[in-house]
Amino acid sequence: MSGKIYEKEHQIKYYECDTKQKMTISMLINIMLHVSGEQSYSLGVGDEVVAEKGLAWIILQYEVEVERMPAFYESIKITTQANSYNKLFCYRAFKVYDSQGNLCVSVNSTFALMNVQERKMARVPAELIAPYESEFSKKLIRMPKPVKVDEEKMTSKEYQVRYLDIDSNCHVNNSKYIEWAMDTLDLEFLTTHEIETMTIKFEKEVHYGQLIQSEISSTKNQENGIVTAHRILTEGVTNCEASIVWKVTA
Amino acid sequence: MSGKIYEKEHQIKYYECDTKQKMTISMLINIMLHVSGEQSYSLGVGDEVVAEKGLAWIILQYEVEVERMPAFYESIKITTQANSYNKLFCYRAFKVYDSQGNLCVSVNSTFALMNVQERKMARVPAELIAPYESEFSKKLIRMPKPVKVDEEKMTSKEYQVRYLDIDSNCHVNNSKYIEWAMDTLDLEFLTTHEIETMTIKFEKEVHYGQLIQSEISSTKNQENGIVTAHRILTEGVTNCEASIVWKVTA
Repeated sequence: MSGKIYEKEHQIKYYECDTKQKMTISMLINIMLHVSGEQSYSLGVGDEVVAEKGLAWIILQYEVEVERMPAFYESIKITTQANSYNKLFCYRAFKVYDSQGNLCVSVNSTFALMNVQERKMARVPAELIAPYESEFSKKLIRMPKPVKVDEEKMTSKEYQVRYLDIDSNCHVNNSKYIEWAMDTLDLEFLTTHEIETMTIKFEKEVHYGQLIQSEISSTKNQENGIVTAHRILTEGVTNCEASIVWKVTA
Repeated sequence: MSGKIYEKEHQIKYYECDTKQKMTISMLINIMLHVSGEQSYSLGVGDEVVAEKGLAWIILQYEVEVERMPAFYESIKITTQANSYNKLFCYRAFKVYDSQGNLCVSVNSTFALMNVQERKMARVPAELIAPYESEFSKKLIRMPKPVKVDEEKMTSKEYQVRYLDIDSNCHVNNSKYIEWAMDTLDLEFLTTHEIETMTIKFEKEVHYGQLIQSEISSTKNQENGIVTAHRILTEGVTNCEASIVWKVTA
C-alpha cells in the first residue's frame, strides 16, 4: 500500500467513553475523521480547497475491526493513510495504537467526492488526490456488505434529528447513525457486549427535523457470536445499513 | 481569589462545532470538566481517590458568560481554579482564552460531594480539598437563579434518555441537559442567535430509559435581548432549570 501516513496522538476523555469506561465507537469515528481532515489541511487540500471546486468529501463505508477498545485516560495514536483511488472512490485506512504500540482498532473506509450543487458523485481530480501520494488502481475494492435486517424478526425505534446532530460540515454527523443503531439495543446487552467488527454503509443523507426509523434484527454467526443487523430509514427510504458482530465483555 | 491554576491547550474539532462552525456549549462544558478532572488527578485527588472514600463530585450549577465562542480549528487554552469552599460547596472557575490571549468564555461553577451509597450530599473532607489550595470561607456564594419557565406560554418536547447519554461516570452526562434544552428552539433561531450568558442548575439526576420533558418559554430582558427559560422534568419532578440570554449573531 502506498500513500503518506499522517499520525496524531489523542488522550481519551471521560465524555468519549461509555459506562464501561471504554471509548465509544461513535467518538472514535469522530476523531479519526478529524485526523484525516488534518492530513488534508497539512497537504494543502483541506476542506476549504475542496469546497472552492464545488466539491465535498463524503463517506460511503466504514469497516471496523476492534482488537481492544481503548479506555478512559489512555493516550492513543491514530494513523491514517489514503491507500489507493480510482475514478470515483478513494480508499483510506485508519489504525489506532495504544501507548505500547499495540494495534487496538483498524478501520478501512471508502470516500468519494460529491458535487455540492448537483448533489451527485464527482470524478476525483488529480490535483486534489496527488498530495496524498496514494496509488491509482482501476480495480474497485469490494467491501463486505452489511447483513440485511430480517424483516420478520425486526424491531424498531424512532428518533427525531436534532440541531446538535448536525456538525460544522452542515451534515448530520456520521457518528449519529451509529448512535441511533446502537440505541436499539438494551442496557443489559450493551454493558455485557463489545463490538468485534462493524460494517456501516451510508446510502443517503438524513436532514434536520426528519423522523428516522432505526431498525434492528439479531442473529448468530458460524462461531455462535451475536450479529445485529441495522437499518436507518426516513419515509421508507434507506439512509444507512450496518451490521455489528459482538463479543461478550471479558 | 486563591487556588492553584491548572491549564490545558485544546484544538477545536469539527464535531465539537455547530453549523456556524462555532464550538457548542455542551462540548465546551465536557472539555472544561475534563480539565478539572486532570487537575484533580495531577494533585493526587482524582476521581478514584474520591471514590475510595465512598464519595463522588457532583455539579450543582454553571454560570456561563460568552464573549466570543471559539471556532473550528482554533487552539484554545482552558484554565481552571478551585477558588473557595465551605462545609458543603466548592466554587470553581473556568476561563477559555484564544491563541491571542483574549478571554472567550468565563464559567463559574458550584461543585459538591455526594455520598454515593446514601445519595446525599457530604461534607468536604480537608484532605480532599487541601491540594487545590483554595480558600475556606463560611460565606455561601449566591449564584443567580435561572429565570422560571412561564407555565402559560410554555411549550415542551419529549426525549428518551439513551445509552450513549450516559458517560464513563455512569451518569447522564451534564452536557445532555443543555442539548435537551437547546433542541426545543428551532433551526432558524439557533442559526441566527448565540448564547451571551447561561445559568444552569442541576437539581436531580436523570436516569437511563427515562422519558424527559424539556420545557421552554421565551421573554425579553431590559436590554430587549431574548431570554429563554428552560426546565427538564421527569414524571413531574424538576431535574434541571436553566435560562439563556441570547444575542443576534453578528
